[in-house]
Amino acid sequence: MNALLTDLYQLTMAAGYYEAGKTKERATFELFVRRLPYNRNYYLACGIEQAVDYLLNLRFTSEEVDWLRKQPQFTRVSPGFFDSLLDFRFTGDVFAVREGTPVFAGEPILTIRAPIIEAQIPETYLLATIGFQSSIATKASRIAETAAGRSVVEFGTRRAHSPHAGLLAGRAAYIGGCTGTSNVECSHRFGIPMFGTSAHSWVMSFSSERVAFEQLQALLGDATVYLIDSYDTLQGARTAAEIGKPMWGVRLDSGDLIELSRKVRQILDDAGYRDAKIMATGDLNEYRILELSAASAPIDVYGVGTDLATSADAPSMGAVYKMVELEVEGIKRYTAKYSDKKATRPGSKQVFRYSDHDMIGCSWECPSCPEGSRPCEALLRPTIIGGQLVEPLPDIHAARTHASASLARLPKAIKSLYAPEDAPWQVVYSEEMKKLEERVKRNYGAGR
Amino acid sequence: MNALLTDLYQLTMAAGYYEAGKTKERATFELFVRRLPYNRNYYLACGIEQAVDYLLNLRFTSEEVDWLRKQPQFTRVSPGFFDSLLDFRFTGDVFAVREGTPVFAGEPILTIRAPIIEAQIPETYLLATIGFQSSIATKASRIAETAAGRSVVEFGTRRAHSPHAGLLAGRAAYIGGCTGTSNVECSHRFGIPMFGTSAHSWVMSFSSERVAFEQLQALLGDATVYLIDSYDTLQGARTAAEIGKPMWGVRLDSGDLIELSRKVRQILDDAGYRDAKIMATGDLNEYRILELSAASAPIDVYGVGTDLATSADAPSMGAVYKMVELEVEGIKRYTAKYSDKKATRPGSKQVFRYSDHDMIGCSWECPSCPEGSRPCEALLRPTIIGGQLVEPLPDIHAARTHASASLARLPKAIKSLYAPEDAPWQVVYSEEMKKLEERVKRNYGAGR
Repeated sequence: MNALLTDLYQLTMAAGYYEAGKTKERATFELFVRRLPYNRNYYLACGIEQAVDYLLNLRFTSEEVDWLRKQPQFTRVSPGFFDSLLDFRFTGDVFAVREGTPVFAGEPILTIRAPIIEAQIPETYLLATIGFQSSIATKASRIAETAAGRSVVEFGTRRAHSPHAGLLAGRAAYIGGCTGTSNVECSHRFGIPMFGTSAHSWVMSFSSERVAFEQLQALLGDATVYLIDSYDTLQGARTAAEIGKPMWGVRLDSGDLIELSRKVRQILDDAGYRDAKIMATGDLNEYRILELSAASAPIDVYGVGTDLATSADAPSMGAVYKMVELEVEGIKRYTAKYSDKKATRPGSKQVFRYSDHDMIGCSWECPSCPEGSRPCEALLRPTIIGGQLVEPLPDIHAARTHASASLARLPKAIKSLYAPEDAPWQVVYSEEMKKLEERVKRNYGAGR
Repeated sequence: MNALLTDLYQLTMAAGYYEAGKTKERATFELFVRRLPYNRNYYLACGIEQAVDYLLNLRFTSEEVDWLRKQPQFTRVSPGFFDSLLDFRFTGDVFAVREGTPVFAGEPILTIRAPIIEAQIPETYLLATIGFQSSIATKASRIAETAAGRSVVEFGTRRAHSPHAGLLAGRAAYIGGCTGTSNVECSHRFGIPMFGTSAHSWVMSFSSERVAFEQLQALLGDATVYLIDSYDTLQGARTAAEIGKPMWGVRLDSGDLIELSRKVRQILDDAGYRDAKIMATGDLNEYRILELSAASAPIDVYGVGTDLATSADAPSMGAVYKMVELEVEGIKRYTAKYSDKKATRPGSKQVFRYSDHDMIGCSWECPSCPEGSRPCEALLRPTIIGGQLVEPLPDIHAARTHASASLARLPKAIKSLYAPEDAPWQVVYSEEMKKLEERVKRNYGAGR
């Protein structure tokens, strides 16, 4: 189980809430990103399924509780707290956007309302799984957009931040728009199409490149992808063509991909392999693909690894998880933080998406939509209520479709690889939300 | 199990090796980094323990094999291959550097010699676990060096690339020089000291900051760390001082840390809390710490999260895993790759560390050391032989000590945050290695 996969302070605070008699207080926390990095115009929310699985299955084993009990940080804590951990279940409510939904700064991706201990402990895990997968889904969507209709396959597990991160990267990349992944477990577990070619070691393990190619073709038939750059790319292409058997195509993995792809295309065409495809790999990302695409390099499929699986140009999302409400003995208190540049807005929120902007309002608002227009959509949906899943989550294919359909509805400028001077999508706060914030700030000022 | 946590091509190539009758051929693969990023002068090797665990426990379940059998990529593969997967065990040899060893471009961190299928399948997992942990250990060592004797605690799980990556980041950061981690499971599983403070939600959950501080102190006694920036940092410091009870100290998490740490120090000192410590957190990294340190900001402990757990300025290590030898029917063949900028050197290697440089030689070399000098050290050590662990791996604390002792023996310039114009550590190739390379290249040229 994963109950200890959290920050120590979540557990000491949980003990503190217990000791302070706060176990019945219900807190509302929101998970959101404070600001977008300079090279991201949106984030695709991803990782909701893993977040939900975690909450529904969060348990402490007796071994874990016994171990905790003995740690110096817990010497002043009453035995009752540890007993309560043995019975720990998440009994609260979760509101979340659908996986694949584009979100902007300040918009909650997930809201938790639960007894304060149940809401506090999951913070670390939720941030890590949603922040990471959202980063990767977003990166994938930028790459897929730049590839402009050509397939992009996720090849990054080897460079991911642990093999397990590679598994989740494959999942998130698919939701973000990749056609598939090279990660076999990702296909096995999530039903994502898997793709593969062959490695240099395959070529090197035979007495010559030609023998290696012949053996590969015997194994894979018309699905064969010859890796042609082990020794000399153009010679590799000629050898592949000379085998004279059906192939899917060839893979270029080094050198000047623009120049080489043109020459290889010519070699394949001259040999009658007009349908054979060219896959390119090797330190690709959206910026490199844009160059290749601008040069009309005859590349049919991109395999993208390192930069995709690590979201290399924005390697963390900076998501936070902040308390916005606390209900003590039936009375709701709105909470916020006023630290320098890290202030938060009080009150449980809803995000209303209109055809041309978003409005962040109070969760209890039901804003009127302009007559004749498409009604706005409330993005946060009840997902877990009273510790029970409301309805099965959309599957991964639905999440992928949702991501591409949602992005298609946003202005084209949002898909620029760079941040336009004017934000391409406006996010405003409702009047009610502004009033609430004003009131809370005033009360806080008065109470000091 | 993790057997499917690999790239598809590893398994199709394995099937291909089987079909081509190559199951008895023994391959040697080396895992190394091609070049160092501009902002890294070395890498600390890390993740060997997870690599070894993986190899010793690599198994395919029957469910996994049945699933594989049905995938379109395996339709032409004989049933015998799948049967062999059910009996899969790693029976080969592993030579690895000790965890915590500084390594340079081209130096193998790990060498595998095994039947080719057993050596091929692990590539993806090994690269991901060693590449990631080495990145984090290295980043941690840069931060710890810059902190110049002040403690650095790893706080990054929430921003790591999945919760599981956070767990491994805590481990690697400790080996690299951090004092501990906030990750509880990391302490539970690896015996690393854990640290924690409290969150803004703790402060916000009480009717006032003062009540929150009193309750925290009642819980933690002299281990109390007050988080003082929820509303107003200096007021928070005064409130902490007014509680009048023992404390460990306070935490600053926002604002101008130089200015605030001085003022807070003054407030604590004036109240008689001369021993109370100041911890600083909030988007720290080695560059920020250098500024704080240069300004003599009175900060005692740094908590570093995002940039450490993601190695943000060098988020992937670019490790590769290349075949260098293949033994076919008792005859050894040296293998290499001549792709543009991605060429590799043939032959199994050993790294000899001298007092003032490294020499990469052939694994069978025993170079003479200059008379009267400290004998050179062969960094790659037998770790697994014939599928069996040679001796228990050094524990995590020994790895941490080894890292700091090894770094201390290297020239000071290596610890610069930037790459000096002249590489601070010379890595040369032995004459025998150069001759081997020349010979292999000539033969390859002749054979074309």
